[in-house]
Amino acid sequence: MSSDKRMVRIAIDAMGGDYAPGEVIKGVVTSAEEGGVEIILVGPLSTLQAELAKHAMSNLPITCINADEVIKEGEPPALALRQKRNASVTVATKLVKDGKADAIISAGPTGAVVANALMILGTVEGIDRPVVGGPFLGLSPNTVVMDVGGNVDCKPFHLLNFAVVGCVYAQKLLNIPNPTVALLSIGAEEGKGNELIKECYPLFQRSSLNFIGNVEGNDIATGQANVIVCDGFVGNILVKFCEGLGITIAQWLKTSLGGKLSNAEISKLSDNLIALTNSVDMSGGGPLLGVNGVAMIMHGRSQALQFTRAIAYAKTIFETGLVNSLNSELARIRRQLNDGKD
Amino acid sequence: MSSDKRMVRIAIDAMGGDYAPGEVIKGVVTSAEEGGVEIILVGPLSTLQAELAKHAMSNLPITCINADEVIKEGEPPALALRQKRNASVTVATKLVKDGKADAIISAGPTGAVVANALMILGTVEGIDRPVVGGPFLGLSPNTVVMDVGGNVDCKPFHLLNFAVVGCVYAQKLLNIPNPTVALLSIGAEEGKGNELIKECYPLFQRSSLNFIGNVEGNDIATGQANVIVCDGFVGNILVKFCEGLGITIAQWLKTSLGGKLSNAEISKLSDNLIALTNSVDMSGGGPLLGVNGVAMIMHGRSQALQFTRAIAYAKTIFETGLVNSLNSELARIRRQLNDGKD
Repeated sequence: MSSDKRMVRIAIDAMGGDYAPGEVIKGVVTSAEEGGVEIILVGPLSTLQAELAKHAMSNLPITCINADEVIKEGEPPALALRQKRNASVTVATKLVKDGKADAIISAGPTGAVVANALMILGTVEGIDRPVVGGPFLGLSPNTVVMDVGGNVDCKPFHLLNFAVVGCVYAQKLLNIPNPTVALLSIGAEEGKGNELIKECYPLFQRSSLNFIGNVEGNDIATGQANVIVCDGFVGNILVKFCEGLGITIAQWLKTSLGGKLSNAEISKLSDNLIALTNSVDMSGGGPLLGVNGVAMIMHGRSQALQFTRAIAYAKTIFETGLVNSLNSELARIRRQLNDGKD
Repeated sequence: MSSDKRMVRIAIDAMGGDYAPGEVIKGVVTSAEEGGVEIILVGPLSTLQAELAKHAMSNLPITCINADEVIKEGEPPALALRQKRNASVTVATKLVKDGKADAIISAGPTGAVVANALMILGTVEGIDRPVVGGPFLGLSPNTVVMDVGGNVDCKPFHLLNFAVVGCVYAQKLLNIPNPTVALLSIGAEEGKGNELIKECYPLFQRSSLNFIGNVEGNDIATGQANVIVCDGFVGNILVKFCEGLGITIAQWLKTSLGGKLSNAEISKLSDNLIALTNSVDMSGGGPLLGVNGVAMIMHGRSQALQFTRAIAYAKTIFETGLVNSLNSELARIRRQLNDGKD
């Protein structure tokens, strides 16, 4: 680890996910060994200590903070938040709010993780609900799709905000200085699409975004734009379709190639394809963009490898100053559209 | 060809598509040779005759009907229809209306083909605009997705109609007696989704459809339901995403397998994958479902093979009596929902 940079402090909900706390702590230990991060595990102290005792980890920067309660899958988030004030995800999120951690990561129930982030950290001005997205297809790694997190029944200003979030993401995390932006639609020409897209088109044109028009579904895999914007209903269905299709094609490849290549070669090819089409699984999770602080949500089925990757991802997001940039870019585009000038 | 069945009469817009009339006529000749169909080519007579003269085709059941005008890509459909009353697609569609043909096929501009079908043939009661769909993924051949044709900003009764159309399609063309029906959404539970899906859920439950609830994007490739229903905006983006992803993965396979298999084997694998993910291209086109008559729209880039396939597809649709079944099933579900009983 670099000596002139302070370590990034990551708070982890040690009780979140199907394989918690065992896999969480296994992943955390690997991250701590790799360096550059200080881990704050949050959960029932005795459970954490018993789990940590299984690992050889003298001098690793891992500390524990007690939280006796756990929010389980299926609990109504609002009720759980009121009744379980000492839940692991809540205590972990508060560490970021209080400046004691730089990021919070949880594989707990989505509703609870999001509700905590919203209530405790709040959102950047202009964002009502966290935006989720990134380059979801490994075959077009420079194309960010926003929103894929289920922001449904959007208005044009929501899609404009998704575009800004996508641009900041592309600039900060993909090093693309002036990302191209497109609306996902059912025809390239202006006027093609549903009401939402038709209303968005002139708004995007008036904005200072590097707007290149509409793209169609087939333009995602070929990376026709750096930021492709859609309602979270469409985006979420697309990402999951991509995951399912990748797995199905990988199985088909195994059958088609059986006897023609070694089993090891076939498995490697099939695993590579799954990795390219299941990027969210591979990265371990995604940031809740637009939240005032780095908050990362993970799949419930995450295992050690995914926790290690999510920690690295959260560290990068913190170091790039994504949250502050989001704040200033969203403010800038509001000003630009209100004033009619940049 | 079977002697006890009369031949199905297919009217073809010989001037529609990027490769018309050459590829159209090449495809038509193959179909006529295969038997079971009588072809009526529609276009400028001298052009048709010159093109037909290139083929050895004595005694094939191909006739020509004159139509001097052609509607070109980019012409506003409504205007073109008014100004070009003798357009090839218009004359061909009228043959179905007048009982002189059993089906019309065109690879001309989508807007013009649809406008002609609507104006001349009209729609089955309950359908405003043609529905497009079918099993779009060769890897889940028993799953029909409706609508993929761009019926956007739908109301719940539109999706109910798509479901009925999908069921009739599955029964008639896939031989599935009691097809399962699902709504495409972003969570399996009732209450997950956008406003449209939330409103559809109880309506679908009350209906006599074999409704199994919501499915997610990843459930398409695994064929979790026989009929998956969505707004045409979502469906169209999905189909095109699937096409683009299939082509991109096929290219990736070529690179990944280079040197490990023979070039011929790699090409075959890659072509197979494209066929499985670009089903609409493979079948040559799709029927405009809900139109009062068999009308088939094809990709502009269709070539001879696609025309031959489209003719076979149109023949099957006519022979199964799909249009009459659609009519009676749509009427039945309206009655059932109005009366509260089946």
